[in-house]
Amino acid sequence: MKELSSLQVAIVGVGLIGGSLARALKAAGVTREIVGMSRKPETLNKALELGVIDRGETQAAAVGPVDILVIATPVRAVPDIMHAFAPHLSAESTVTDVGSVKTFVCEAAERHLGDARSRFVPGHPIAGTEHAGVEASFASLFENRTVILTPEEDVSGTALETVDAMWRLAGASVVRMDPRRHDELLAATSHLPHMVAYALVNCLARHPQAEELFRLAAGGFYDFTRIASSDPLMWRDIGSTNAGPLIESMKTFRAELDALIEALETRDEEALHRTFAGAKQARDLGLARKNGDR
Amino acid sequence: MKELSSLQVAIVGVGLIGGSLARALKAAGVTREIVGMSRKPETLNKALELGVIDRGETQAAAVGPVDILVIATPVRAVPDIMHAFAPHLSAESTVTDVGSVKTFVCEAAERHLGDARSRFVPGHPIAGTEHAGVEASFASLFENRTVILTPEEDVSGTALETVDAMWRLAGASVVRMDPRRHDELLAATSHLPHMVAYALVNCLARHPQAEELFRLAAGGFYDFTRIASSDPLMWRDIGSTNAGPLIESMKTFRAELDALIEALETRDEEALHRTFAGAKQARDLGLARKNGDR
Repeated sequence: MKELSSLQVAIVGVGLIGGSLARALKAAGVTREIVGMSRKPETLNKALELGVIDRGETQAAAVGPVDILVIATPVRAVPDIMHAFAPHLSAESTVTDVGSVKTFVCEAAERHLGDARSRFVPGHPIAGTEHAGVEASFASLFENRTVILTPEEDVSGTALETVDAMWRLAGASVVRMDPRRHDELLAATSHLPHMVAYALVNCLARHPQAEELFRLAAGGFYDFTRIASSDPLMWRDIGSTNAGPLIESMKTFRAELDALIEALETRDEEALHRTFAGAKQARDLGLARKNGDR
Repeated sequence: MKELSSLQVAIVGVGLIGGSLARALKAAGVTREIVGMSRKPETLNKALELGVIDRGETQAAAVGPVDILVIATPVRAVPDIMHAFAPHLSAESTVTDVGSVKTFVCEAAERHLGDARSRFVPGHPIAGTEHAGVEASFASLFENRTVILTPEEDVSGTALETVDAMWRLAGASVVRMDPRRHDELLAATSHLPHMVAYALVNCLARHPQAEELFRLAAGGFYDFTRIASSDPLMWRDIGSTNAGPLIESMKTFRAELDALIEALETRDEEALHRTFAGAKQARDLGLARKNGDR
């Protein structure tokens, strides 16, 4: 593992993920300066007050030379940020991002990063909460979490080692994957569940007795729909930039749903039981394996 | 409120709900004897060992006179249990149940309870966990929870007061509702989410890379699908006995899902954002109101 120290780090988008990464790197004592960048001065002021960043800037040109540039904005903003930073990156700068969709940012790097393209290491920490903003950030967010890196074959070895080491310092384990494969897997495990949660909450919200439904709903309903309180802008971007794999996942899910509706319509109790028991077994096993990995 | 004391209580089905009610009534000090009934002697032995019940029986005839008979089995078993107990109930016995579907048990009472029909007060505690069995039971399960009672218009006032008082002793608040209305509301707030969670887990389980998907899935996925670990037999019964309202809810949900798929297919970002933001707002408001009620 590459040893990191005295790093000049710029983090664009100082929200839950960017803020938590800044806190984790500070806690690890490897940074000379963390520069936060945001379009919103109030975000920068809050991050400065909280001690999450050392300096705040609203323009790429003002950030100065960086060892690592971390793009931690909603996915759709990534191309513009790459475009703005490209002229200011040195031959030593490593670039990474934290977006939930990877083919989109890989294509953006191809178009906008110029020479820095080979030092771009796309990343995705599988971590988060339903809360947004720098106020919600905390240094241990990535501990024992997985970060998926999806670099091209011809990526700079140094850049890859740098990003790998950065995430290990934050407490995460790192795996490498093809970006298309990442987007398909994440569509199933994360993007689909969010769509389902949003659709489910809207079902109740549009019911004539919505208020009574929300009052009657058990704690289980609020646990189940917790992810529907996630940032709508972030999810608009994920939906629109990973639409292909996500639509595929949603159609597979709809087929499952249709099969259940048919089993209910025909009162096919054996099919109902088989479906429920199979799901319970798969989830319990998946959870046990996951906990066993820890 | 009717004062309860020195009650002879029979609880049929000593699982999570029946066991927790037994524990709560014991803690309240209002019972003379709690008789547990189950087809399985091993369940009764465990309940006796845990001190949840005072006596265990496998036959209705052996239970003896009761002040309150609580039927806490999966819903589909309720008619047979009513049929078995009807000849043994006195004119003083109150009968209630805890099932998640109410029109089905009301019809069963009509057919099977004979003279005790007017002393039947159908009930549904909105409480539970994904764990099943008497080992998972605990006395505070119903504290600050809502119990819905769905008696007929001509129900005995004494029986209604008895069941109402029993649940208040367990720490719950009680509301009264028409059984058909109950089944429609619960289809939306509870039965639909369970179907969705089961379908979602099966989507991943049937994926060619299922094992990797379950390993990669974030904590949020396991929170989201926690209810898919619920008892498959219980949910088979709920599905088959509340199929009508549940199918309606599932079709409404499918329409929401189809609208989202269309917004993704047409890259209608405004529709995506509107959908996600509306759901977030509705859930956050519902949760705040619910917490405010406490």
